Amino acid sequence: MSSRRDFIQKLSFGFGLTAISDLTFRPDNPPAFRPADKQLRVALMGLGGYANIVAKAMQDCKMATIAGIVSGTPSKIETWKQKYNIPDKNIYNYETVGELKNNPDIDLVYITTPNSLHHKHVLQIAAAGKNVLCEKPVADNAKQAREMIAACKKANVRFYIGYRLHFEPHTKEVIRMREAGEFGKIMHVNNYMGFKIGDPTQWRLKKALAGGGALMDVGVYSLNGARYATGEEPVWVTAQETKTDPVKFAEVDETILFQLGFPSGAIANCGCTYNFNNTERLYINGDKGFAELSPAFGYGPIKGRTHLGPLNQPVVMHQTLQMDGIADIILNNKPDPHVTGEEGLKDMIVIDAIYESIRKGGAKIFINK
Amino acid sequence: MSSRRDFIQKLSFGFGLTAISDLTFRPDNPPAFRPADKQLRVALMGLGGYANIVAKAMQDCKMATIAGIVSGTPSKIETWKQKYNIPDKNIYNYETVGELKNNPDIDLVYITTPNSLHHKHVLQIAAAGKNVLCEKPVADNAKQAREMIAACKKANVRFYIGYRLHFEPHTKEVIRMREAGEFGKIMHVNNYMGFKIGDPTQWRLKKALAGGGALMDVGVYSLNGARYATGEEPVWVTAQETKTDPVKFAEVDETILFQLGFPSGAIANCGCTYNFNNTERLYINGDKGFAELSPAFGYGPIKGRTHLGPLNQPVVMHQTLQMDGIADIILNNKPDPHVTGEEGLKDMIVIDAIYESIRKGGAKIFINK
Repeated sequence: MSSRRDFIQKLSFGFGLTAISDLTFRPDNPPAFRPADKQLRVALMGLGGYANIVAKAMQDCKMATIAGIVSGTPSKIETWKQKYNIPDKNIYNYETVGELKNNPDIDLVYITTPNSLHHKHVLQIAAAGKNVLCEKPVADNAKQAREMIAACKKANVRFYIGYRLHFEPHTKEVIRMREAGEFGKIMHVNNYMGFKIGDPTQWRLKKALAGGGALMDVGVYSLNGARYATGEEPVWVTAQETKTDPVKFAEVDETILFQLGFPSGAIANCGCTYNFNNTERLYINGDKGFAELSPAFGYGPIKGRTHLGPLNQPVVMHQTLQMDGIADIILNNKPDPHVTGEEGLKDMIVIDAIYESIRKGGAKIFINK
Repeated sequence: MSSRRDFIQKLSFGFGLTAISDLTFRPDNPPAFRPADKQLRVALMGLGGYANIVAKAMQDCKMATIAGIVSGTPSKIETWKQKYNIPDKNIYNYETVGELKNNPDIDLVYITTPNSLHHKHVLQIAAAGKNVLCEKPVADNAKQAREMIAACKKANVRFYIGYRLHFEPHTKEVIRMREAGEFGKIMHVNNYMGFKIGDPTQWRLKKALAGGGALMDVGVYSLNGARYATGEEPVWVTAQETKTDPVKFAEVDETILFQLGFPSGAIANCGCTYNFNNTERLYINGDKGFAELSPAFGYGPIKGRTHLGPLNQPVVMHQTLQMDGIADIILNNKPDPHVTGEEGLKDMIVIDAIYESIRKGGAKIFINK
């Protein structure tokens, strides 16, 4: 802990009381990190489609770099090694990944493996003493999320979730306006996210790998969006399911609607699907104004408007912004914009309640904090 | 019945088999009417704010005219009499309204009294042997709606509901596209309608006059819209309520969300409110395309777009189109576009189920047809 204390003292000296105040946003036991390094050295774990998007976006990063990879597929390792100039000493497979603990040249592992493997992999990376960025959804359920948070705390590593929209300029502006009271009292939120899924053999349709269906994978956007639209945690949840293709969606949910009641009286009407397109919208309505983002949750470009007119924030690859943002949080001790493991847990608590409401025929599930 | 039979024969002669086919859309026992008249002679019953809108719109009608009034307020009678040149013999109050049965110069009474009076007033007008156009919502509940339909059948008068949007060009185009399969299989509907209600002393906030709150008065647009968006009747309903101002909304509902499941698997996520603005949208999403109307349900101008681009239908006062449309149905024996009392009953069955679901904590209510 002495190195951390030293750093806080240095930081306080340099930045004054504002920096002290920022520290209130930090996890309880942030790990030691490297003020000498200007780049966050990232290993990508799980080299599927999304890792390719992240890697491409990271070419434009100013503060984060691809330093290592973890993959079970030798051919992928060879391709990535060449493409991103990765030294052999920073290359791991799922058997050797524990050896990361002896590698001082990796600061953080970004886990983009199939959803149901997040729990196991976060525990492995925490045990290796590395900071973790885990793709959403954080886990299969709240119990797993709690175990992941506890493991990261015990290992004294940071734990973030790939909630990239918290780094996206249109979304940030809407959150800023809401926090500034520009919409007034928030009354109604209407969010939905989905798409028609293709290949029927993919892991997203397998319960054992995906944990769930549309709700887990894309409903989490509607849900996380309802939380940043209101700035509140729901106190009750109701939900309904429909399934029009019981063959394709034999193992996972196809389309789910859910509603959230918030302490202020605000109410959210949300949905998600794996079976149709043109399903991507965030709508925040307050007693003084509104914001609509549509598309709202995909890789962009995000478009939107408010009661004041169109939103014209810069269009930048979300993953570039996210990785520079995470690097800035860690390297420069900045406050995080609601992307901690605890935020992932808050979503998982609601997801558990959504599935419970569906099992109980739409019954209102009260969430005990 | 002989005059009706005569007319059908004349009509068949003039229009051929198409006209015969059209007759399949008619109520079982349509009343005798007046082919000699080119104008439908309408008496307005209940001279509140909405009657003023209707009267103004009717100045542009080609087939309908204001021929009489029914009011309990002498000062209103005097104003309307002068403004619309109404002869004394066509003026009634709530005590004398039964005498309409002796007046051959009124073809139809348009009832725009407070919602909870519709049941009583439709029964009165039916007993006087006049065709009825009743403002939505048809009644307080499905039981009342059934009694109203039965009374009109027994009296051999026609019974229509003021579902003006079925005459509105943007809405008609969306319905046409849906019926033509241009959206493909309908998967998801997202409708909401509401506004921040003003004067806290108005009848809309009194249970005894309004029957209910936002759901009755404006939620019926979301609901009717979900039915014309899908062309189906829901088989299950869930609903949730929130109340942020329990003083203003002591007697009636403030904000309600509801969800509808349809036989095809389509699902609708709907809402309504009396407590915030910027709440007016119809969204139909199919597997081949979509339509969005916003504003969708108010007095216009309705605006919208589909997957093919903007909708640019003519902007005409809805009430002008509705009154000419109702006149055309009656005078020229045209098929009605889903505005009969039976359509009102279908909405009331769902409204009953919505309130039941709320009472039961969001439980799924299955609708037995």
